[in-house]
Amino acid sequence: MTGETRVRVRYAETDQMGVVYHANYLIWFEVGRVELIRQMGLDYKSMETEDGCSIAVVEANVRYKAPARYDDEVVVRTRIAEFRGSIIKFAYQVFRAGDELLLTEGFTSHLVVDKTMKRARMPERYAELFRRVMAE
Amino acid sequence: MTGETRVRVRYAETDQMGVVYHANYLIWFEVGRVELIRQMGLDYKSMETEDGCSIAVVEANVRYKAPARYDDEVVVRTRIAEFRGSIIKFAYQVFRAGDELLLTEGFTSHLVVDKTMKRARMPERYAELFRRVMAE
Amino acid sequence: MTGETRVRVRYAETDQMGVVYHANYLIWFEVGRVELIRQMGLDYKSMETEDGCSIAVVEANVRYKAPARYDDEVVVRTRIAEFRGSIIKFAYQVFRAGDELLLTEGFTSHLVVDKTMKRARMPERYAELFRRVMAE
Amino acid sequence: MTGETRVRVRYAETDQMGVVYHANYLIWFEVGRVELIRQMGLDYKSMETEDGCSIAVVEANVRYKAPARYDDEVVVRTRIAEFRGSIIKFAYQVFRAGDELLLTEGFTSHLVVDKTMKRARMPERYAELFRRVMAE
Repeated sequence: MTGETRVRVRYAETDQMGVVYHANYLIWFEVGRVELIRQMGLDYKSMETEDGCSIAVVEANVRYKAPARYDDEVVVRTRIAEFRGSIIKFAYQVFRAGDELLLTEGFTSHLVVDKTMKRARMPERYAELFRRVMAE
Repeated sequence: MTGETRVRVRYAETDQMGVVYHANYLIWFEVGRVELIRQMGLDYKSMETEDGCSIAVVEANVRYKAPARYDDEVVVRTRIAEFRGSIIKFAYQVFRAGDELLLTEGFTSHLVVDKTMKRARMPERYAELFRRVMAE
Repeated sequence: MTGETRVRVRYAETDQMGVVYHANYLIWFEVGRVELIRQMGLDYKSMETEDGCSIAVVEANVRYKAPARYDDEVVVRTRIAEFRGSIIKFAYQVFRAGDELLLTEGFTSHLVVDKTMKRARMPERYAELFRRVMAE
Repeated sequence: MTGETRVRVRYAETDQMGVVYHANYLIWFEVGRVELIRQMGLDYKSMETEDGCSIAVVEANVRYKAPARYDDEVVVRTRIAEFRGSIIKFAYQVFRAGDELLLTEGFTSHLVVDKTMKRARMPERYAELFRRVMAE
């Protein structure tokens, strides 16, 4: 299962090199991650507010292939690359809409934490779904 | 009393026009505001965490005179323009260091709120100091 | 004529008060402005690259009514409030989708500039359209 | 040779988890990189404007150890981990000032490019210095 979401490049996201500033891809990865979770039938917001279950980033990696530019529409494809215990790894690819040029790819690894930022187990009803989605 | 603080323009803060993206001045205003509060002998962080007293922005205004550019050092001058009840208004001027060119000026108005974002009175020991600083 | 566009609040846009950081509304205003221009049949990107015609912000104003929160969908409504010579003023309202709660309103004033950031006249084919849209 | 620079956490850099949003470390890495270059006696701004020589990011990696919080002062330590041909790799560590707690570490790899974003050789007077600094 791969989540797919679209982002239009904002002027604020460009830098003086005339391309998207590199840190913004981490923000788009997060947009992709949240939408994948939504497509799984979950709601990351409720996971945080109702279950006190956050997924804190422990590692992020981005490889830049080609620059996105102002007003480009880009597609973020997200999948769960790994899930065991309290570790989740998401993998991402960002494409330019239209010609499907690969712009960046990368991953983020997360630790399930509680409200005090301590390592925690993911509530079982979420965990089951994560395992199932990864197996698809 | 005027607080003064310096900011070096980051690459991330530029846009493809080759100048600082306009929303960033609000972030620098906030840097100036926090430093003025620190120069008053207070600590905005403790006001929030210990006293549950935040100052939520209710209005912001920026007038752009000249663009800041990458790697420029800029000076933010902040003063309290108004303080009554639970309303505080800060006024700002941002200059380019060196030639003192005025880049932007503006203000932000704030409402004192408690942890639930409800209007609140500022604790008297802070209020007294704000009144004194404004009178200087 | 009022342009309308939707934005989903990103985690990156929140701050530790648990609401959207106030500078982000200026970024959303820009998203609204660009989409209004697109709905007018123009393309701000081409205006910049092909005609060397940018609209630099000279003033921005935001009044905050209610906070947007993570994952909220918000609606940005944008209209041209003024257009004469090389000055354009856009007015904005940001609503929470669903219950139509007004979150912020504000305006930005712009000066038409050329590639060297000098005041310029807007190319007549754009100017005509701006006048027509404002009159609607 | 290790460059060292200090950054004060801005309110805008926090998120609703109450800690610094993870993408901001890439911005701080860039602050560290530019300051290291300055401490080498160079000026990244002139490299770009006078020599048309940019260093575009091709990979970025961050490992998150402990969260930075609002108003923390953090220290960014930067060194050149690799330099050959048109590839430069910088390594970073971000510490909390005071107790020297390690918050994040990571690297960014860069390709030297010209104004058209094409791979280029670094001008020899810069290259010599980069080699010397790396050998120290």
